[in-house]
Amino acid sequence: MFYGVVSQCAQSLKNLETCLEKAELHAAAKKFDVNVLMMSRLAPDQHHFIYQVQSACDYVKAAAAWLSGQAPPKHEDSEQTIGEVRERIKKTIAFVDGVEEAQYADASDRKITLSWAPGKVIRGVDYLLQVTVPNTYFHITTAYSILRHNGVDVGKFDYLGTMNFVDR
Amino acid sequence: MFYGVVSQCAQSLKNLETCLEKAELHAAAKKFDVNVLMMSRLAPDQHHFIYQVQSACDYVKAAAAWLSGQAPPKHEDSEQTIGEVRERIKKTIAFVDGVEEAQYADASDRKITLSWAPGKVIRGVDYLLQVTVPNTYFHITTAYSILRHNGVDVGKFDYLGTMNFVDR
Repeated sequence: MFYGVVSQCAQSLKNLETCLEKAELHAAAKKFDVNVLMMSRLAPDQHHFIYQVQSACDYVKAAAAWLSGQAPPKHEDSEQTIGEVRERIKKTIAFVDGVEEAQYADASDRKITLSWAPGKVIRGVDYLLQVTVPNTYFHITTAYSILRHNGVDVGKFDYLGTMNFVDR
Repeated sequence: MFYGVVSQCAQSLKNLETCLEKAELHAAAKKFDVNVLMMSRLAPDQHHFIYQVQSACDYVKAAAAWLSGQAPPKHEDSEQTIGEVRERIKKTIAFVDGVEEAQYADASDRKITLSWAPGKVIRGVDYLLQVTVPNTYFHITTAYSILRHNGVDVGKFDYLGTMNFVDR
């Protein structure tokens, strides 16, 4: 389960590539700098697009690391352009892809510590379902919504990406 | 896994209750009808708040049903008020809570048919990870974002709800 869920979170992150391409097309058509979209928000006191992607990346990276018994690699939050956002997604996926299914063998009972819950731990299975999944999809969807709200022609199938349908 | 993931999706839906309460407080403080928020959107060609909740409910209900070998109960999309939205969430959760863990025993290999993919099927495990989870969190997050964008004082911990942290 752990491998499957984390891999799908990584795939959903990768699906943002299509949204980034559409953001570039929209900015070019409207003749504005695409990096304006990278700094856009849904509310003045909510984080901007780049932060949403950084955060989604970090939840997926952290899950692949902690659930396989490793400390996550440090990725600095220094992105300022759409090109840097793409690189952040790529290095996150490269890390997650490097963790093999067997490395999640003990994931369920691992005790995970989170910086925002000092003195507490959460079991691997609860971490996956209550922290990784809701946070990853929260930040990916918020990134998507920032583009959607600003007129980029993204649709839910861009967000969903490829699904393993087979002929009946 | 199936029981755990579907139960967490239902819990995340239930967490919207806090957002609904905050929507009511905000509308009362600003002296407008809270049902204005129920009809609000992030983009003119995206669906409104009530649709987002209906859709999240339907993905969770359908997962509990199809993955346990049942046809989902029909819930009409007739909600127009915040009270009706609450009822929709409640009846969805009541249905999901009625499905016991053992009923998901054959979930992984079930072949699921979706109305928007005629002639195709998707295996239970792919349906859960590629359809249920991304769609459920997409619509819950979008509902949350509609309130956030309109000034309601919701925060990510309202969305996340209770997590099973224990003392270290």
